[in-house]
Amino acid sequence: MSLVVIGSVAYDAIETPHGKRERTLGGSCTYIALSASYFAKPSIVAVVGDDFAGEDKTLLESKGVDLQGLETVPGKTFFWSGVYSADMNDRKTLATDLNVFADFNPKIPTAYTKLPYLFLGNIQPALQLRVQQGMPGVRFVGGDTMNFWISGNKRELLETIKHWDFLLINDAEARMLAGESNLRKAAQKILDMGPNTLVIKRGEYGAMLFRKDTLFMVPGYLLEDVFDPTGAGDCFAGGFVGYLAERGFDLRSGVFDVTELHRAVIYGSVMGSFCCEEFGVERFRTLTRQEIDQRFEEFRRFTAF
Amino acid sequence: MSLVVIGSVAYDAIETPHGKRERTLGGSCTYIALSASYFAKPSIVAVVGDDFAGEDKTLLESKGVDLQGLETVPGKTFFWSGVYSADMNDRKTLATDLNVFADFNPKIPTAYTKLPYLFLGNIQPALQLRVQQGMPGVRFVGGDTMNFWISGNKRELLETIKHWDFLLINDAEARMLAGESNLRKAAQKILDMGPNTLVIKRGEYGAMLFRKDTLFMVPGYLLEDVFDPTGAGDCFAGGFVGYLAERGFDLRSGVFDVTELHRAVIYGSVMGSFCCEEFGVERFRTLTRQEIDQRFEEFRRFTAF
Repeated sequence: MSLVVIGSVAYDAIETPHGKRERTLGGSCTYIALSASYFAKPSIVAVVGDDFAGEDKTLLESKGVDLQGLETVPGKTFFWSGVYSADMNDRKTLATDLNVFADFNPKIPTAYTKLPYLFLGNIQPALQLRVQQGMPGVRFVGGDTMNFWISGNKRELLETIKHWDFLLINDAEARMLAGESNLRKAAQKILDMGPNTLVIKRGEYGAMLFRKDTLFMVPGYLLEDVFDPTGAGDCFAGGFVGYLAERGFDLRSGVFDVTELHRAVIYGSVMGSFCCEEFGVERFRTLTRQEIDQRFEEFRRFTAF
Repeated sequence: MSLVVIGSVAYDAIETPHGKRERTLGGSCTYIALSASYFAKPSIVAVVGDDFAGEDKTLLESKGVDLQGLETVPGKTFFWSGVYSADMNDRKTLATDLNVFADFNPKIPTAYTKLPYLFLGNIQPALQLRVQQGMPGVRFVGGDTMNFWISGNKRELLETIKHWDFLLINDAEARMLAGESNLRKAAQKILDMGPNTLVIKRGEYGAMLFRKDTLFMVPGYLLEDVFDPTGAGDCFAGGFVGYLAERGFDLRSGVFDVTELHRAVIYGSVMGSFCCEEFGVERFRTLTRQEIDQRFEEFRRFTAF
């Protein structure tokens, strides 16, 4: 099944205790699309500058990513730079140059408008809403947001997520959005805001999925080496929604297997873990579906009792 | 099966965002024994002052705890006082008055010496070793330690844990003991120190069990309200070793089901979660085995995919 992904395509400069990269392909849309490409056909909507490298387009195309919605405009591509702490649980942003992303005005190619799955990466909530309104055929929609929109554009954000099937955020964002420090209570408040499904990412500690009547939890995959955590949350999103698109998961039919949502959380965790094994998007150059399914089975073994 | 537990019996003054208690029964040995009492018969070795209240003895006895090894000496019982932060992930110790615990010299009642299970709570490693040497009939032994002994008495600690079947510590202690920040690598180093089983507690984030050939992980139980986290780690220990004693788990026979160790981690998590639901040991006044088994089954539902 096809999946539309909106978000940023960027260049990143990253430093971790394992090394340094001066300019490597990044951005939420990039990570989500690459991760989802193992399960479904991602069609992206994003903007880059005229400095965007042909080889980066080639990488995306080699994974079957539809680039019709990737607009190129004069100027520079979004650039982010950051340094991770020794334990990699913390990072310091050195630069955020929005460049052409500052005026990002998502345009949905006609070919996308009838696609069934939509993931709205972290951009201004009003833009997320507009994109959704432009896709009347969508039947499973959700997305991500961040502290910046929660604190600065809350009303707009609430109006946007009201129409989502799922919201995928981290624990700090969930607490902030709900104004409640207890995660279980925070989750119930967020489910009252519209989405019927809430996925909370907790980085190395795993993830949780909440619905009115169910709760699912998974611990984080324990890596031997974390090279670079950049993009892990977005890869989680790509695995989550990619798997559901692959399965043709149809929440709105009223007939669905909630266990598929749990498996989607596991695939999200699997994809997030692979992302950390190399710098930037490097791991996706070699990663195979077989490795992904093997790690999914590892999760079964690690959690069976 | 009977289980010998060594550690502290204390009085605590506790303040959390939910309230305050001026003097409530506490101490690692108390929590471990109360928690384990739902699965096995705990026989404790500890020391209290002549201020120790009859009603506290009665509580322990009502749970079937064998108090032959509870020595009463002139002076005051160990006293600890602390205040928790608003999110309860941090606490500040206001007072640690060792009192009679300063000269704790564990004496094993003859009736205990042939008991099969032994849990060595966090005391000086040399004392832990001496207790183990005094129990030749033991066939499953392990314990806890803390940063103080890891940094100050490392050689002594290594000599002690070399003879243990399992070590049960938190993630910060595991990293410190191994001198390695990656938990997976740290665990392998610790398994080389002697224990064939390592359980790492991560508080609200759950727990992990490592053996040379297997890894088991469980997320933390998500409570609606955490009243007081004091003793949760010790209750985890009590549930873990108590369940194994109940099952007659015999690691040294060479024939055992490793899944029983996983279930023991779940029972540990269950007991740790109940502990947080009320102040001090209060929850154990009403807690039933049925509630415990129900929460064990909840863990199954929460983690199935």
